[in-house]
Amino acid sequence: MDVFEAIGTQRAMRRLKPDPVADEDLWTILDAAIKAPSGGNRQPWNFLVIRDPETKRKIGEYYLDGWNKIYGPFKDFALADPATARTFNSAEHLANHLAEVPVLIMATVQRDGIAPGSPGGASVYPAVQNLMLAARAIGLGTTITTLHQHHEQEVKELLRIPEGIDTMALIPVGWPKGHFGPASRQPVEQVTFWDRWGERRER
Amino acid sequence: MDVFEAIGTQRAMRRLKPDPVADEDLWTILDAAIKAPSGGNRQPWNFLVIRDPETKRKIGEYYLDGWNKIYGPFKDFALADPATARTFNSAEHLANHLAEVPVLIMATVQRDGIAPGSPGGASVYPAVQNLMLAARAIGLGTTITTLHQHHEQEVKELLRIPEGIDTMALIPVGWPKGHFGPASRQPVEQVTFWDRWGERRER
Repeated sequence: MDVFEAIGTQRAMRRLKPDPVADEDLWTILDAAIKAPSGGNRQPWNFLVIRDPETKRKIGEYYLDGWNKIYGPFKDFALADPATARTFNSAEHLANHLAEVPVLIMATVQRDGIAPGSPGGASVYPAVQNLMLAARAIGLGTTITTLHQHHEQEVKELLRIPEGIDTMALIPVGWPKGHFGPASRQPVEQVTFWDRWGERRER
Repeated sequence: MDVFEAIGTQRAMRRLKPDPVADEDLWTILDAAIKAPSGGNRQPWNFLVIRDPETKRKIGEYYLDGWNKIYGPFKDFALADPATARTFNSAEHLANHLAEVPVLIMATVQRDGIAPGSPGGASVYPAVQNLMLAARAIGLGTTITTLHQHHEQEVKELLRIPEGIDTMALIPVGWPKGHFGPASRQPVEQVTFWDRWGERRER
């Protein structure tokens, strides 16, 4: 698949079938992940592939609690606008059904693998994006989530993640119920400035 | 270009020609950037395209100072190992020649556009990775850098970036002197765990 097609149709897939995902497909997307750049090429990432039902059930509980705390108060507000209602509904669906997703992938960063003062995310999220683009190319649905962080310590204990490692993203992976396609975005001309903040140009 | 080829050959390009980069090529990679996912699809990103020579000169000074502070002390150590010497030398070259790069793109995040407690990077670095993959597909070299953050306040004043906006990455963009190709990475089997931290599998 052409890289621009993958980029242009990688919308967040939050409604996923419970059907299993083969190891080989997981290796394909993980192999794409580790091709990403990282600060000084130190590759401070790890990827934890979670398929154990009991582990997924517990993570699902932590995730749902994070969802309720952060997004619960905004439900009426989000549903009042069709532009946000669709995203809210699908994200709520995911929060209520996370344990049924066949595979969860946790991306982590080794704190001692990043330069002093550098943002760890710069050395992990490009890999996560590679993983999601590769998934889209082979037809697997994904979305990047961070709500588990509201219970990060419990999640780390559950997965036996040691000190010095931060959890950065939890990516549900499965065969999508819906269809890939373009997602709505603000026009690029609106968010791009030239030489100084606020200076826009026509394309 | 196939998405797996772009992913597999997007190595950091730190030696770039001073030749100009056309607006249309910049729109192409910026348009890929904004296709990326972000928390709640809030798209809290902006991209500042910097071509003004005086602005680049000043950013280059701040960047070089950050480089000297963070990486200067490790020079002998890095050069002693061929595996790190190559990366060090090219990164040092970039630090000494940043102002000669035709285009610098600063990616920023709006702090009020990310959910409470969420890492802002999760809503910006996937867009940065899209931008770099699109650049690779059309032959433009890039690398993700964050050393300007050691003088973030000065850089924000220079670019007139208001309060509430964080600078997340500075991406030099230009036609590369070298060739694209695979970069060295630890084997994916080493960095991937299954269900519990430390549990590896053969592919």
